[in-house]
Amino acid sequence: MSPTWQRLIRFEATDGRVLRGEPILPQEDFDLGTVTEDTKLQAKVIVGSDIYDGSGESKVSDEVVQVKRLLGPLTAEDVDILRCVGLNYAKHIKEAGRTPPPYPFIFFKPNTCITDHDVDVVIPKIAQDDQADYEGELCIVIGEDAKDVPVERALDYVAAYTCGNDISSRKLQRDPKLAGNVPQWGFSKGFDTYAPLGPCLINASLIKDPKKLLLKTIVDGETRQEEYVEDLLFDCAYLISYLSSGTTLRKGSVIMTGTPGGVGAGLKPPRYLVPGTEMKVSISQVGTLTNGVRFA
Amino acid sequence: MSPTWQRLIRFEATDGRVLRGEPILPQEDFDLGTVTEDTKLQAKVIVGSDIYDGSGESKVSDEVVQVKRLLGPLTAEDVDILRCVGLNYAKHIKEAGRTPPPYPFIFFKPNTCITDHDVDVVIPKIAQDDQADYEGELCIVIGEDAKDVPVERALDYVAAYTCGNDISSRKLQRDPKLAGNVPQWGFSKGFDTYAPLGPCLINASLIKDPKKLLLKTIVDGETRQEEYVEDLLFDCAYLISYLSSGTTLRKGSVIMTGTPGGVGAGLKPPRYLVPGTEMKVSISQVGTLTNGVRFA
Repeated sequence: MSPTWQRLIRFEATDGRVLRGEPILPQEDFDLGTVTEDTKLQAKVIVGSDIYDGSGESKVSDEVVQVKRLLGPLTAEDVDILRCVGLNYAKHIKEAGRTPPPYPFIFFKPNTCITDHDVDVVIPKIAQDDQADYEGELCIVIGEDAKDVPVERALDYVAAYTCGNDISSRKLQRDPKLAGNVPQWGFSKGFDTYAPLGPCLINASLIKDPKKLLLKTIVDGETRQEEYVEDLLFDCAYLISYLSSGTTLRKGSVIMTGTPGGVGAGLKPPRYLVPGTEMKVSISQVGTLTNGVRFA
Repeated sequence: MSPTWQRLIRFEATDGRVLRGEPILPQEDFDLGTVTEDTKLQAKVIVGSDIYDGSGESKVSDEVVQVKRLLGPLTAEDVDILRCVGLNYAKHIKEAGRTPPPYPFIFFKPNTCITDHDVDVVIPKIAQDDQADYEGELCIVIGEDAKDVPVERALDYVAAYTCGNDISSRKLQRDPKLAGNVPQWGFSKGFDTYAPLGPCLINASLIKDPKKLLLKTIVDGETRQEEYVEDLLFDCAYLISYLSSGTTLRKGSVIMTGTPGGVGAGLKPPRYLVPGTEMKVSISQVGTLTNGVRFA
């Protein structure tokens, strides 16, 4: 059952309340990531405790409020875990001369990584030495508990899509002096604020085919990543089916589907996040997730 | 602030209720993992919603009930994530001829892995081919949110200890045909029921020095792992401090501290879990966590 909203935003209203709402778009292709107080965006308040409920417990009310500041659509309390996929864009793997993995390469980020749209990612002391990096990604939000789901039915379990940025620490991940002999995909990507999500959730029913979505990551005004989701080696339906093998994907959990070529570590010379870097992850139909960077 | 109980069990009472309680031990060194209905163990019911609260919201009440069946002390709802440490027993690393990692090797298990004492671990179809394995481990339960904690204060954040079994799938973890070129520590260890915990939580204040604890794993009556926690390359205090770098360890989260030599994959020939295998993870002062095995 589909959620009752088309797009869901979480925001501070002009009356000071933090709310979830269905934005009243000024035009169909409006990018919610561009909202400021001056936009005077209005939204209908979403009520009820379960934002994925489609049976009436949660619904879009008639109360219209004005948005002062957009936050992220999800918080740590909404998501039990983020499941992430490494090495999943085919062209990027070929470019890098790597062998495509036979099955998805999976790692996890704790829910404490989640942070809002339009706030700074905070690089902790342990990861401030030329290693912090961005990874723009399409994210899937699971709408009901899923286990052992066949590929053909997998997209039925998607409540929504959003943009995500899988912030990574390259030395902690790969440098043998820090990571040891085996690359580490957990700790190095798991710091607080290392998973900005947003700017909105878009109801999966509005995305006819996720493969047609175009993902871009723009850093300090420069387009660094640009690829259609079609290039995914393991697509959304396959990922959900594979990840649900013997495993309950709980309602509200998030799958980050992987990142295309163009991360900072892959540039020549490499370019890492520094205080003041502006990162934008933009996906067609979803909007643009913007975050700054500061050092703790 | 320390929890109000000394030991916490979760159980089905003879009146059918599922409760948490402070067991009334028949003798000081009684192993709670041996409880059956015939034991006629009594427990004082623990009331309140926050079992780690030491200020009065949660407390050991005067209501005494009889235990019919012990469950595990924690459920998925109590734990946001399990942080796990690979390659952490020094002798085991040396025996295997491996290089000790310079910093802890960290991976995560989702909370959906958690299962009770005295129930079967369920091996999913994808992992039934000679690869399911046990790993007996000392587990730390965090009692209050911890971030950037110095080593000297790290043990102050421990509410309790318990036994855990880090069930693992060796082919999905290491076989290049399945895992690709990089070992996978997430998916292969993340299936439902892959983290039995129990038989009780023991208040950290009762464990003067976790290094003195002796860990044993007994499989079908044969002792396969036996090591003092003192052999940990990175000890409990160091792990908490390191893991809390830039990262909020939330109240209730669990750290699995690593496993010593003697896992099934390391035996000659290797011996993997099959339907009917009985696994016991026993730690002095904590008790014995017992689980069977079945194939889905």
